[in-house]
Amino acid sequence: MILITGASSGLGAALAKTYAQDKHTLTLTGRHDERLHEVAQACQPANICTLTADLSDPKAVTRLFDQLPATPETIIFCTGSGYFGNLEKQEPDAIAQLMHNNLLSAAYFLREAVIRYRNTPLNMVMVMSTAAQTAKAGESTYCAVKWGVRGLMESVRLELKDKPMNLVGVYPGGMATEFWATSGKTMDLSGFMTADETATMLKQALQNAKHGYISDITINRY
Amino acid sequence: MILITGASSGLGAALAKTYAQDKHTLTLTGRHDERLHEVAQACQPANICTLTADLSDPKAVTRLFDQLPATPETIIFCTGSGYFGNLEKQEPDAIAQLMHNNLLSAAYFLREAVIRYRNTPLNMVMVMSTAAQTAKAGESTYCAVKWGVRGLMESVRLELKDKPMNLVGVYPGGMATEFWATSGKTMDLSGFMTADETATMLKQALQNAKHGYISDITINRY
Amino acid sequence: MILITGASSGLGAALAKTYAQDKHTLTLTGRHDERLHEVAQACQPANICTLTADLSDPKAVTRLFDQLPATPETIIFCTGSGYFGNLEKQEPDAIAQLMHNNLLSAAYFLREAVIRYRNTPLNMVMVMSTAAQTAKAGESTYCAVKWGVRGLMESVRLELKDKPMNLVGVYPGGMATEFWATSGKTMDLSGFMTADETATMLKQALQNAKHGYISDITINRY
Amino acid sequence: MILITGASSGLGAALAKTYAQDKHTLTLTGRHDERLHEVAQACQPANICTLTADLSDPKAVTRLFDQLPATPETIIFCTGSGYFGNLEKQEPDAIAQLMHNNLLSAAYFLREAVIRYRNTPLNMVMVMSTAAQTAKAGESTYCAVKWGVRGLMESVRLELKDKPMNLVGVYPGGMATEFWATSGKTMDLSGFMTADETATMLKQALQNAKHGYISDITINRY
Repeated sequence: MILITGASSGLGAALAKTYAQDKHTLTLTGRHDERLHEVAQACQPANICTLTADLSDPKAVTRLFDQLPATPETIIFCTGSGYFGNLEKQEPDAIAQLMHNNLLSAAYFLREAVIRYRNTPLNMVMVMSTAAQTAKAGESTYCAVKWGVRGLMESVRLELKDKPMNLVGVYPGGMATEFWATSGKTMDLSGFMTADETATMLKQALQNAKHGYISDITINRY
Repeated sequence: MILITGASSGLGAALAKTYAQDKHTLTLTGRHDERLHEVAQACQPANICTLTADLSDPKAVTRLFDQLPATPETIIFCTGSGYFGNLEKQEPDAIAQLMHNNLLSAAYFLREAVIRYRNTPLNMVMVMSTAAQTAKAGESTYCAVKWGVRGLMESVRLELKDKPMNLVGVYPGGMATEFWATSGKTMDLSGFMTADETATMLKQALQNAKHGYISDITINRY
Repeated sequence: MILITGASSGLGAALAKTYAQDKHTLTLTGRHDERLHEVAQACQPANICTLTADLSDPKAVTRLFDQLPATPETIIFCTGSGYFGNLEKQEPDAIAQLMHNNLLSAAYFLREAVIRYRNTPLNMVMVMSTAAQTAKAGESTYCAVKWGVRGLMESVRLELKDKPMNLVGVYPGGMATEFWATSGKTMDLSGFMTADETATMLKQALQNAKHGYISDITINRY
Repeated sequence: MILITGASSGLGAALAKTYAQDKHTLTLTGRHDERLHEVAQACQPANICTLTADLSDPKAVTRLFDQLPATPETIIFCTGSGYFGNLEKQEPDAIAQLMHNNLLSAAYFLREAVIRYRNTPLNMVMVMSTAAQTAKAGESTYCAVKWGVRGLMESVRLELKDKPMNLVGVYPGGMATEFWATSGKTMDLSGFMTADETATMLKQALQNAKHGYISDITINRY
């Protein structure tokens, strides 16, 4: 079973559809019940389970893991939201929301996954952004939370050094998703990658061999 | 005037005392009213103003800047708290607290400083930690928030490129402060730097010349 | 046509064999004439051309590109050698050799590729090492040359920003190849990845879509 | 005694003059005999010794250390040269020269210093450039060698972990020195830092305390 978070839209939804085509058994989670069901609908006839959850609530995270129908062989964490603009133009409440949606949810989710599965052979894929690798004007708080998730992941990697649970870091740049519509930034998205093409490349790039695996992937637009 | 945050303990308190010895006019802020007054007491007879504030509350941040007796020529942001241990042993509430104390407070504070002073020649010193530069086992959420502050600062630097307000990044490692007592990590602190020696080195290293300035400083124990 | 450098051994040779199985037309280059022919032999019956060249000689690099039977759609730079041990135990001549084999050859090769192909849609894959991403005791000069290749590649990326030539960074860690036998480091290689499994994963991970591509890949052993 | 390399011009010469004013005993080395003597002249009446040496020649490096009049308490490595322009416009010979002048000389020098002084309390200051911290278009090979020196230094730091010899990384950006005149890049230097102001700031920032020291310093122009 593959567990995908943030599956109600964007890259998470596109990954769900791509994996469904290969007849994978999927568990999808996201904050938006209705949209999550639409995505599940589009994944038919694959074997799909949906579990609505707000990952910035630690009790919801525990409940989600309690309700999983099976131990996942792969978990893809795609949860996140965007908020942009120069720092002096940003609103405190929206900054707090951004941190909860991206960094706090990543910490709660990864913590619960490590508690339950650190002794299980499993790929835990953390989807971040190229904003986790570089500083960007107009994206200071977004870079803050994405650098934060990366610092979290790289540190937990050290904690899991001799464990069979593997952390995979994924850094996609410039995708054309509904993400931007609500992000406070006006962009020409015509040259951006679609979520579908990103999902297709990512699925193929995620690989394990006998002695090793693809541990980090950056995906960029031309 | 020099504004120091996180001045009620640790490096912030030590910086206050060091600058007070040079007869600088200081404004000190921190969460702990009583401890802040003790620090101010120890800074006598320098010209000191104390303003208690919880920087993870955006209204308190606005109020703090409203109450400043003058425009600071230097601001030293020393606010922060520690929380350690392997991720699976950490408590969700304490993780949220850590993010609020370190990352959210940095974003709120820096935002307000940029709103008010981005067109003013001023050094805005962000004190982080060597945990902002590297991953560390047993410090995953602490690294997360410190990497986050660094991503924030590096991005805001780009936004302030042609402005007279300068951001200075400071990365101290291994200090022996009361920080550790409440952090959930047992340490032998005998080889650690004291807050006083770190403050003394930092004060001397922070410099401006006609065409440039010390923009980043890392301080390590032997 | 796919051009692979460093193809006479290790990952380069393994990539040649893997691509040959898919009936790709290949041009293989390496310093060792005899070993290069053995690799070409093992790639039969694919369409293979071999061109012996020492890429640390700029004239040999020019000659190599002059002799290419066609414009490559993909170039995989796998050239390199290893040399290890604490710095005080290393020999000056071997350090110079290491820089020539790894960094100078990368600069000469990339320069010639950029001169000829910067206006051609083409993937230029630079295979480095996880030693390009982190510092390692006992590998100081090896890290030096690999960090150097990375700095070169990241800078040339900026120069090629609006060009159809794409640079792809590849960072494999811990492979069991003859590389180690001559490197001055004694290692237990039993848990290391084989060159073949690394090549298989890398070939599958290298992908282009309409608006973007996999730009960076790290491959690690468990 | 303080040993300064690259002392015949630029930051090295400026550091020599600044330390001479404080009556430090100095040993200056550089490639250019005549210019080195001019610098020594300008440092009078301080106690100065000059030793001409080309650090990209390992025998010259050994000879230099053999001739030192005393064990230095601080060594400042300022050796280097610049070469700029887009990669396709650079000449192979000049690229090789750049690597020898910057990276190979750093490796030979640091190796000899580690052999002799790793058990001596001593600050070994490696002056690099902001080009060691970021990629820059038009500076690909210069970034390559500076990233290389940084990878070298960070790795040797790990090798010296329990030793009294400390490595200090210094990253100055945008100085107005004769460096640029011969570098192939035309620049408006009016807003750049002078070597003198950089040297003055650096001297004051380099500090040791009982339990720690300033380990890394970045100096930027406004």
